[in-house]
Amino acid sequence: MNRSNENLDAVFHPRSVALVGITTANPQHWTRGFLEGYLAFDFPSRGRLYLVNPKGGTVEGCPVYRSIQDIPDTLDFVVGLVPSRSAPQLVEDAAAKGARCIHFCTAGFSEIDEKEGKKLEEELLRAARRHNVRIIGPNCLGIYCPEARMSFSGIFPRESGPVGFISQSGGNSNYLIRQAALRGVRFSKVISFGNACDLNESDFLEYLADDPKTQIIAMYLEGIKDGAQFRRALRYAAEKKPVVLLKGGTTTAGTRAVMGHTASLAGSRSIWESLCRQTGVIQVQNLDQLADVLVTLVLLPVPDGRQALLFGAGGGSSVIIADEFERRGVLLPQLPQHVIKELREFTQAEGNFFNNPIDYSQSMEPSNIRRTLEVLARWGQFDFMVCFLVPTQSTRVSDVRRFLLRVEDIGKPLAIVLVPSIVPEEANIIFETIKTYTAAGYPLYFSFAGAAKALNLVLTHYECKVARQERLR
Amino acid sequence: MNRSNENLDAVFHPRSVALVGITTANPQHWTRGFLEGYLAFDFPSRGRLYLVNPKGGTVEGCPVYRSIQDIPDTLDFVVGLVPSRSAPQLVEDAAAKGARCIHFCTAGFSEIDEKEGKKLEEELLRAARRHNVRIIGPNCLGIYCPEARMSFSGIFPRESGPVGFISQSGGNSNYLIRQAALRGVRFSKVISFGNACDLNESDFLEYLADDPKTQIIAMYLEGIKDGAQFRRALRYAAEKKPVVLLKGGTTTAGTRAVMGHTASLAGSRSIWESLCRQTGVIQVQNLDQLADVLVTLVLLPVPDGRQALLFGAGGGSSVIIADEFERRGVLLPQLPQHVIKELREFTQAEGNFFNNPIDYSQSMEPSNIRRTLEVLARWGQFDFMVCFLVPTQSTRVSDVRRFLLRVEDIGKPLAIVLVPSIVPEEANIIFETIKTYTAAGYPLYFSFAGAAKALNLVLTHYECKVARQERLR
Repeated sequence: MNRSNENLDAVFHPRSVALVGITTANPQHWTRGFLEGYLAFDFPSRGRLYLVNPKGGTVEGCPVYRSIQDIPDTLDFVVGLVPSRSAPQLVEDAAAKGARCIHFCTAGFSEIDEKEGKKLEEELLRAARRHNVRIIGPNCLGIYCPEARMSFSGIFPRESGPVGFISQSGGNSNYLIRQAALRGVRFSKVISFGNACDLNESDFLEYLADDPKTQIIAMYLEGIKDGAQFRRALRYAAEKKPVVLLKGGTTTAGTRAVMGHTASLAGSRSIWESLCRQTGVIQVQNLDQLADVLVTLVLLPVPDGRQALLFGAGGGSSVIIADEFERRGVLLPQLPQHVIKELREFTQAEGNFFNNPIDYSQSMEPSNIRRTLEVLARWGQFDFMVCFLVPTQSTRVSDVRRFLLRVEDIGKPLAIVLVPSIVPEEANIIFETIKTYTAAGYPLYFSFAGAAKALNLVLTHYECKVARQERLR
Repeated sequence: MNRSNENLDAVFHPRSVALVGITTANPQHWTRGFLEGYLAFDFPSRGRLYLVNPKGGTVEGCPVYRSIQDIPDTLDFVVGLVPSRSAPQLVEDAAAKGARCIHFCTAGFSEIDEKEGKKLEEELLRAARRHNVRIIGPNCLGIYCPEARMSFSGIFPRESGPVGFISQSGGNSNYLIRQAALRGVRFSKVISFGNACDLNESDFLEYLADDPKTQIIAMYLEGIKDGAQFRRALRYAAEKKPVVLLKGGTTTAGTRAVMGHTASLAGSRSIWESLCRQTGVIQVQNLDQLADVLVTLVLLPVPDGRQALLFGAGGGSSVIIADEFERRGVLLPQLPQHVIKELREFTQAEGNFFNNPIDYSQSMEPSNIRRTLEVLARWGQFDFMVCFLVPTQSTRVSDVRRFLLRVEDIGKPLAIVLVPSIVPEEANIIFETIKTYTAAGYPLYFSFAGAAKALNLVLTHYECKVARQERLR
């Protein structure tokens, strides 16, 4: 779309990277997380990795250069882990080595409530402008891009995926990547960008809008640097692909926290809400909702409508999930009498009911469930199916897999709600089941309310898209 | 309060109980759960336990009588596990043995969508009236009363506690008892009462309102049998102790599910909402909210107001928790400059901020946290404290306990939000931490939103109570 994209292409495909300021003494120090990440992702198989610390020596078998000048190579990308007061000098030194972009993880700039920090950040930006270097940060974790083998953590998935995530918070990036990854969502590029003294949310948004590897854009934003640019970028991106936004700092206390965290100007809640409505952006309220919506967008085939067929075990659970779903606008069509009659022919009446939710408490035998699904598939008057299970004594956890594994041949999109347990022995069994279903590619949710909210948000998004397209014709 | 209380007193203090219709062949059969429960709770140390099945023999070392007539004893309480068509006969036989109350677990009555079931339930009630026997159920799990050593599960806590729970669903009873128990909430009496053909929600409510062992009443209701009686009972109970209500079937689909589950008439949502408002009953939307509210009522000392001080790790987490709390009406007073200055004297500025939430990302050392708490305690301009932690890579799970264990000497009510992980190795560590804090008596929550909702509901309840008392003076 514009000039900044070219610079960012270099960020996501560096041939040489230097981690400057990495600690040599303490393997537990946070700066070592970057080395762990780059080694776990085997960056050296793809590009050249250099470490810099005035003390020299070796770390994890890699030589440590005493200064950036000593590196016998040009540098494409630099990760700055130096103390904040050394940051402007690093810009100069990195530029001399050919670097076009530096990510500063270093904190202690405008986000600390002292004049000194603000002054230092201005000085940093002046140095960058002077040497034609772009800056990501400071006060952030930078880049996770599995395709380029760049990662700020060794435990993230190695595989790429369709989601691009722009996050003003490093901790929130970590949380979302891990939560979404456990549920089968993979990322094209994640950018934790902190204070945004130079490259900002709009630059990254424009880049991901044009990035062919990114099909869905997620954002955690605390504030924006340039309102007009952001509005343009958001409209542009949302025209091209689904955009999901979590806005941090929509209350007085949240706004104050934003000031301390990334020194951003949060803006009023209603402005953000109307901006999302106008542009068709899906707005969520917390990270779990963001994960739920991404799971839905990535893994649930687009249903033809919002008529859901619910299938699970437990009378009380059935009542509560029906309320939670319908309260949030998901529709539950009633089963016609002829279908109920057909089901009753081979299922006992006691302890089962077939009113949508279909409660299968007392008839967990696979053969019966299979026949039931065949009857339901023949009827077919619903758009997608939701299978649910809650760990209780009456629904033994050992039944979970036997029960769920049959829900495959329904010929409609299928979502699964599997409420986890915090009790270790159950948690382990449920986690195995979660992994099985995630590996099979099903969208998985951890609560009735979470599933209902995400389904409603995504269904509304699809409906609005169709309505917009019809208006345009 | 009335005649029915006397009958119920016998239910909760039986000297002899018979489990009639227990399966002798299959130890996995659901009827065996009751024997497991009564044996795990050592009922025989308190009263006489009898088993009945036409096949005779022994089960778990207990003799099985071929018929109830063969039992050489009078019976106070009978648990009916027989097929539905044998239920009316059991009433007659139990009455002949002196039983004043029978709990019918058996399903297959009015809740199944067939005339036969309805007719059978009417027949059952007629038999009960004829023989002056009261019925709990049918289609329910009956009584959990640790003090009387009665339980429909072997895994519930042995200790009694202040919460009485009246639930129309057995599965929901199981779920709530376990969830609440894991978080330190104990029960005086739990009644799962299903179809309520005889004893109904109002009878149990009146009983618990007068029960000196019950300080808080929780309810999961799908419908009511007698509107006028229920209104009276609810008003009476809510005058005497906090009442928390989860109403199942507040939507069209939920109401339909209620019909299939317990054949109750659900009633409109707005009627229930205004009834709760008028009586000062706390209304919740799902079982996790119900558990959150009970944890708050039981374990959080009543705060003087709704000014919260938030203390945790993570910039992004701090922003989101601030939004989640303030959005739901919990107030976060700003720290005055002199307090921030005092804290800055011994804490680095980078990676920590002190704006409430207090973000302690980079300074997890116990000595620093202790000094911080001392400064905050001296300041003291808040009503309660909330400590929060999210498992992410940057907040290592091993830090969790070190971090939290220091938050003790603040001299104000303390709540803890500890977001669990579904990853087994983390889940185990977090579960141990949950147990530690639960054992120490702290109220514990599993999400920012959940904590905020529950705190707001309970604070509002306390405020309304004060307002009502002032109006009455």
